[in-house]
Amino acid sequence: MTFIPSAPTASIRPVHGGNLVWAAAVANCSPDSLLDFSASINPLGPPESVVLALAEALGQLRHYPDPDYSALRYALAEYHRLPADWVLPGNGAAELLTWAARDLAKGPAPVGCHLLTPAFGDYGRALVAFGVPVKPWPLSLGEMMGEDSLQNAIVGPDVEVAGILINNPHNPTGRLWSVDSLKPLLDRADTVIVDEAFMDFVLPDQQQSLIGELDRYPNLVVLRSLTKFYSLPGLRIGYALGHPDRLRRWQRWRDPWPVNALAAAGAIAAVQDKAFQARTWDWLPPTRTALFDGLRAIPGLYPLAGAANYLLVRTTTPAPMLQEKLLRSHQVLIRDCLSFPELGADYFRVAVRTAAENERLLTALGQAVAV
Amino acid sequence: MTFIPSAPTASIRPVHGGNLVWAAAVANCSPDSLLDFSASINPLGPPESVVLALAEALGQLRHYPDPDYSALRYALAEYHRLPADWVLPGNGAAELLTWAARDLAKGPAPVGCHLLTPAFGDYGRALVAFGVPVKPWPLSLGEMMGEDSLQNAIVGPDVEVAGILINNPHNPTGRLWSVDSLKPLLDRADTVIVDEAFMDFVLPDQQQSLIGELDRYPNLVVLRSLTKFYSLPGLRIGYALGHPDRLRRWQRWRDPWPVNALAAAGAIAAVQDKAFQARTWDWLPPTRTALFDGLRAIPGLYPLAGAANYLLVRTTTPAPMLQEKLLRSHQVLIRDCLSFPELGADYFRVAVRTAAENERLLTALGQAVAV
Repeated sequence: MTFIPSAPTASIRPVHGGNLVWAAAVANCSPDSLLDFSASINPLGPPESVVLALAEALGQLRHYPDPDYSALRYALAEYHRLPADWVLPGNGAAELLTWAARDLAKGPAPVGCHLLTPAFGDYGRALVAFGVPVKPWPLSLGEMMGEDSLQNAIVGPDVEVAGILINNPHNPTGRLWSVDSLKPLLDRADTVIVDEAFMDFVLPDQQQSLIGELDRYPNLVVLRSLTKFYSLPGLRIGYALGHPDRLRRWQRWRDPWPVNALAAAGAIAAVQDKAFQARTWDWLPPTRTALFDGLRAIPGLYPLAGAANYLLVRTTTPAPMLQEKLLRSHQVLIRDCLSFPELGADYFRVAVRTAAENERLLTALGQAVAV
Repeated sequence: MTFIPSAPTASIRPVHGGNLVWAAAVANCSPDSLLDFSASINPLGPPESVVLALAEALGQLRHYPDPDYSALRYALAEYHRLPADWVLPGNGAAELLTWAARDLAKGPAPVGCHLLTPAFGDYGRALVAFGVPVKPWPLSLGEMMGEDSLQNAIVGPDVEVAGILINNPHNPTGRLWSVDSLKPLLDRADTVIVDEAFMDFVLPDQQQSLIGELDRYPNLVVLRSLTKFYSLPGLRIGYALGHPDRLRRWQRWRDPWPVNALAAAGAIAAVQDKAFQARTWDWLPPTRTALFDGLRAIPGLYPLAGAANYLLVRTTTPAPMLQEKLLRSHQVLIRDCLSFPELGADYFRVAVRTAAENERLLTALGQAVAV
């Protein structure tokens, strides 16, 4: 076979916001020079404590990771006040989503899974990969998704409820569902997967995690991620919280060392870094409010109130056009919503970054909308 | 739920040789103080070039990995003189084995997979996880596995051949199958998975890789690992080489970022480090010969000739007893073969390490056998 050189190209618009190669080519700059609002990553991270732990762990690479990940599971369990066997670390929450989907595929003809939409594209990937029929469960964006709409979507007597996959806070809307509004789902469905990838961003006394319901609901799995809050998307580390029987089943489906030794060391440092957590909670609420107000002041932009570290914005200028203008003229990358069919060109999403960076975004958006 | 502290324990003998926590507890020392012959890892590594690349990549963790892994696939493709779309990187070869097994599970009633035994335990895990009937294909250790025995095992007219899973060089025996002896398998079976995790250790002009057969056999997949040759078991990096249609199918089954950014950067540096590769090829053959001769000189030990960086040894003293003596008196860890049911207590496996370390092993074994 002849070797055909095929250097990295950037011709195809990526489906996920994190692909900087394409954006840098459009902006005609290096990926590092982009100001990236497309990935909802904490701009304060990664924490120094984590980088130090990683640098130290470089000396450990000649050993296999502990297949039980005892130290990691212990640290995560302690953080959530759970027994360690209720914790399963994964190669990012996305890896665990794969096994959640396989779990939902039980039986010769799986009933299907209700999927709150618009939804993160990888949910569909995972469900389709295991032949689980996807039952879209559309939120009405117009009525700003009252808790009623959550209830109404599944309480009809003709609704067969096997699986439910939902995230909280919801991506891309930023909607935070209350524990009380979610509890009825736990009583109705065979399996409920709640992706709480952004829950850490909510102030501790306002969080609406279902972790406290785990001991009463063996049908519940909570997925968490260290990617967003600790700015570690390159490291791949997340975890599932759920009944030990279920987690042991998932473990048998996958290889013995899904988490690399660096990710394990970094995660332990991350959840123990109380100072970084406090700094993030100090930064986010006022900075998000200022960004929200700035966006609302721009003609043709209508931001939705959100509880996480990003804001969904309705736009009268088509979002892909805005995105390209911002890239070419300002090296600023926003997240178009073409991968969410329900949103299309009418919406874009931006991460909340530092006050100065948000100002740069607002200036760029003001100019792009005006032209 | 009450949090029940459950600190790491070391009470259970691990199934895989890499679990140092248990061994350190038996030896009453720290895991770092053990001299580990149980994991077959190149003692010359990790290469400095890789550690430097990893340290540099620590600054890139706030970005998602490129979901196409273009730079990584390009580097691996160049190394093997293949087109880039014939390469699929994975979170260690073990992750890719999971998808190989799913591939073998095609159809409502998979015919099954012939598995050369004794075999690495994770092969069985992966096949069972997807309901693939395992058809053990036992090698006769007594006749030292001539090429005949490879042929005879599958050429009977009544043998239904759907899948074949084999590794080359074979673990734990160290047997290197020739390309010519393997080719008939490619003509007979629907799918052939060849795990070449240790092939890099064979001198380039003696390697028997099936990579050169890929363009003629779309039913062939070659798995490769950077774990052993580059001493990076903690990093989790391996790759599959096979027909692009198959690799794209595997890709749809798993999450978009299975390889972390550090592993991707480290792998590129590794395959480009020609000096490290040359150093390893200089070290291994004479050092392995010396270790083989030393083992053969100890009463009751019968090493098998092997082509990789480990030796399988038959022992008249039960291997678990030897293992425990070596741990307690010498902080030396050998690999018992209890996880290979065909071998049991009659065999152990040792990695080839540096000449000085091998001497320490031989001294310890001589004393342990004599007592």
